[in-house]
Amino acid sequence: MENMKKTGRQLREVAKFLGGTVIGEETVTIYNIRGIDEAGEGDLTFIANPRYKNKLEETAASAVLVSPDVKESSRNLVVVENPYLALAKALTLFYPEERDSVKVSEDAYISEGAEIAEDATVYPGVYVGRNARIERGVILYPGVFIGNHVMIDENSILYPNVTVYRRCRIGKRVILHAGVVVGSDGFGFANPGKDNLKVPQVGIVEIDDDVEIGANTTIDRGSLGKTWIKKGTKIDNLVQIAHNVVIGENSIVVAQVGISGSSRLGKSVIIGGQAGLVGHIEVGDNVMVAAQSGVHDDVGPNQIISGSPHMSHRKWLRTQACISKLPEMRNTLKSLSKKIEELEEKIKIIESQA
Amino acid sequence: MENMKKTGRQLREVAKFLGGTVIGEETVTIYNIRGIDEAGEGDLTFIANPRYKNKLEETAASAVLVSPDVKESSRNLVVVENPYLALAKALTLFYPEERDSVKVSEDAYISEGAEIAEDATVYPGVYVGRNARIERGVILYPGVFIGNHVMIDENSILYPNVTVYRRCRIGKRVILHAGVVVGSDGFGFANPGKDNLKVPQVGIVEIDDDVEIGANTTIDRGSLGKTWIKKGTKIDNLVQIAHNVVIGENSIVVAQVGISGSSRLGKSVIIGGQAGLVGHIEVGDNVMVAAQSGVHDDVGPNQIISGSPHMSHRKWLRTQACISKLPEMRNTLKSLSKKIEELEEKIKIIESQA
Amino acid sequence: MENMKKTGRQLREVAKFLGGTVIGEETVTIYNIRGIDEAGEGDLTFIANPRYKNKLEETAASAVLVSPDVKESSRNLVVVENPYLALAKALTLFYPEERDSVKVSEDAYISEGAEIAEDATVYPGVYVGRNARIERGVILYPGVFIGNHVMIDENSILYPNVTVYRRCRIGKRVILHAGVVVGSDGFGFANPGKDNLKVPQVGIVEIDDDVEIGANTTIDRGSLGKTWIKKGTKIDNLVQIAHNVVIGENSIVVAQVGISGSSRLGKSVIIGGQAGLVGHIEVGDNVMVAAQSGVHDDVGPNQIISGSPHMSHRKWLRTQACISKLPEMRNTLKSLSKKIEELEEKIKIIESQA
Repeated sequence: MENMKKTGRQLREVAKFLGGTVIGEETVTIYNIRGIDEAGEGDLTFIANPRYKNKLEETAASAVLVSPDVKESSRNLVVVENPYLALAKALTLFYPEERDSVKVSEDAYISEGAEIAEDATVYPGVYVGRNARIERGVILYPGVFIGNHVMIDENSILYPNVTVYRRCRIGKRVILHAGVVVGSDGFGFANPGKDNLKVPQVGIVEIDDDVEIGANTTIDRGSLGKTWIKKGTKIDNLVQIAHNVVIGENSIVVAQVGISGSSRLGKSVIIGGQAGLVGHIEVGDNVMVAAQSGVHDDVGPNQIISGSPHMSHRKWLRTQACISKLPEMRNTLKSLSKKIEELEEKIKIIESQA
Repeated sequence: MENMKKTGRQLREVAKFLGGTVIGEETVTIYNIRGIDEAGEGDLTFIANPRYKNKLEETAASAVLVSPDVKESSRNLVVVENPYLALAKALTLFYPEERDSVKVSEDAYISEGAEIAEDATVYPGVYVGRNARIERGVILYPGVFIGNHVMIDENSILYPNVTVYRRCRIGKRVILHAGVVVGSDGFGFANPGKDNLKVPQVGIVEIDDDVEIGANTTIDRGSLGKTWIKKGTKIDNLVQIAHNVVIGENSIVVAQVGISGSSRLGKSVIIGGQAGLVGHIEVGDNVMVAAQSGVHDDVGPNQIISGSPHMSHRKWLRTQACISKLPEMRNTLKSLSKKIEELEEKIKIIESQA
Repeated sequence: MENMKKTGRQLREVAKFLGGTVIGEETVTIYNIRGIDEAGEGDLTFIANPRYKNKLEETAASAVLVSPDVKESSRNLVVVENPYLALAKALTLFYPEERDSVKVSEDAYISEGAEIAEDATVYPGVYVGRNARIERGVILYPGVFIGNHVMIDENSILYPNVTVYRRCRIGKRVILHAGVVVGSDGFGFANPGKDNLKVPQVGIVEIDDDVEIGANTTIDRGSLGKTWIKKGTKIDNLVQIAHNVVIGENSIVVAQVGISGSSRLGKSVIIGGQAGLVGHIEVGDNVMVAAQSGVHDDVGPNQIISGSPHMSHRKWLRTQACISKLPEMRNTLKSLSKKIEELEEKIKIIESQA
């Protein structure tokens, strides 16, 4: 990154592109975007998290993206509604995507009946199965495996060593990071622990438009029917999605989460890292699950839950407060027991004297 | 799946294949198998979980696999001892496995001294190392790496991008899903946190017959000797098995479990998702470990354990009940303290009056 | 392993190589190294863990590596300062690394502008991107993907199916096990749960010399700037390292740990398996984090912490002791309540009689 030569742009031009207002010198030239600690002359930086506000005066950056509550500063400012959103936009300006000009490599293996759109990119070492369909703008990096009858819709990117098993369907503008596995067999065995008889997994995985899935995440195919990731959902690295799970639109699933078979999540659900969900439950829209939680039962919409087993976040906070007081509570209990014994003794004496 | 054309079969024919009894119309034609909510005319469905029994009368399926406790229904029934087992069998009838006719691809890399049985399937992009042996009926999908001196026994299937390091041994009818790593170095360093001196990992992994291992699971080679997964054991996705672990026959290890070095599990052990086991422990036959547990010590056979650190499931239930009452207990403790103070006060007065 | 023919060496020669002293027969011949339970005639074994000391007299090994506190035995001993360190050294003697003589395969895909040192090993099926640099002694196994502008320094080993995204930098003598992903996009979305607008991840990953990373571990690239694994750190399998994390020198990160974005760890930090760290925290030098902990805030240096949420290990032990006594505490509380009621009753009577 350091060795990429960047084109300079005047701050007022950048602000216009972002829909923001400059406070300070409009004509300073911006060459790059850097974090607030690393930024220097020629750099634009940003403050998205209020707890970094104190760094505003110290930064050596030529300009800073800030929210409207910052009124003035010795720095050049670009005031925008949402600095993190503006950063996302600015990055597309300063870091346009680089593309190799590969088309369909002669060193890719294309099976009989597969259809590949003319402007798709298929790197060497890719395998495309029988009757698979690869639409326009798709990029398949080396080591990608596309099973028979798979469909990859327009402009999706599959990074190296992604595996998509037979018959699965991937929507438009989907991003699958390296090592993702889509459509492996669900974990279904009759008489578990005894015969472990394999139940054939004959369903598929369907991934809708604008989904992004992190490196080495695994999504099992439906046992029957489908495992379904709906539009706009983003899944982080090393997540496990079991057979017949459904995840609603625009949800967020953080790294190392595990979701067991046939559970159904609503829209805009956010699951914190390393949380686990048992199978066959329903989680409502807008639910937030704290990291490392264990969700063992249905959860109605619009709630924040924590803990393993999970409870409302509010109750969890109260419970945790108690847990940290447990040694103290235990001591209190001992001292009360002793006091009661003394009282009983005294009363016995009083009674005997009466 | 939806676009596969299925052959129809009369219900009596299906029942005969499954060893079941028809109640209702024997001559209805079955084309496909679907879940109870999706099934319609021409479909066979099933009720394996008693809590879905109420769906029996509502389903549009042409027939339903049920257990013997279902005596009658307006639906056509196939009564079998174990509906889930029968489903597994029925699926093999309606979804026979499709095979590509590949044999040994010219685009696979076969090293010197490797022996590949004539009817094995080796896709393009596979690498087979020196003196490796691939027996009859084995399927190696694209991107599979077979290290030097590895042995893969009859009818095993290695899905895309599986890596098997040097000298490991895979039994018969083993299934390794995409991205599985077998035989990576165990995590062994002398003076950890100081020199971190690597201890060479010179052992192997041995996987016995009929084992299935889920996508992106990792199994480290022995430091010395072997890591050993015994016959019939099934391991889910993203599981970590450390060096020199031994897992007994017919065990079940659910997704994202981690088992630390040199621990030994008995037969028919079932480990719930995201559980962790420390190293150098023994877990007896038929033990069940609840999801997210932390197993820190030996566990005798035939137990159910839960929690982190683990305890008997029964004790865990009692303890959890208490934890959810903690805020209440704390309040009780406060009110008791106050009452005792009042009592002490009163007794002081009584005593002074005596 | 079993079928490798080993060269024999006299025990005195082995002891000299290890800087140890023989007690017993110096001329016995050693052919192999095995664990204490498996070792027999011709084998050297070791006792690194004091709890296996009782096995010393029972082993059939021809010699045993022991620490200086073992004064005598009926076995032949090699006394060394640190038996586990000595084992590591002895293994390099008896198991010299086997190398294929591959050089740069004609079946590897080398992009324009890539520079590959003459004595590097590049297996078939490797992809090396534009302007990448592969230094001398590097080994790239089949299925490895090297992105554009990536730099891999001397003598590093990348096992099969490793992916290194564009511009990342790998130091000297680094080992990346099979399926490792370096440089995937960090999980950065503006308005999460609503728009999920992707924030371009334009930073890199830098991995310093002598780092080893376990199978299927994922390390995301910096959002801006870099994710940085410093010299000598060892990371186990299936670990998640988020964008802009920094891990100090000689640290140890055990399997399935997750470290969230922008957190910074000091030197010689040891993180137990399945632990999770939230983002934007600082963890000081020499901190030890117990397995399955949840670290939610900054941690000063030289501490042991446990639990989720984390606390000092000492406090955690006390708290756990209380938790296991909770059912008992709850009973005590009930009985105290009853006793107090009785006392109140009695006092009421006494007062009324006064």
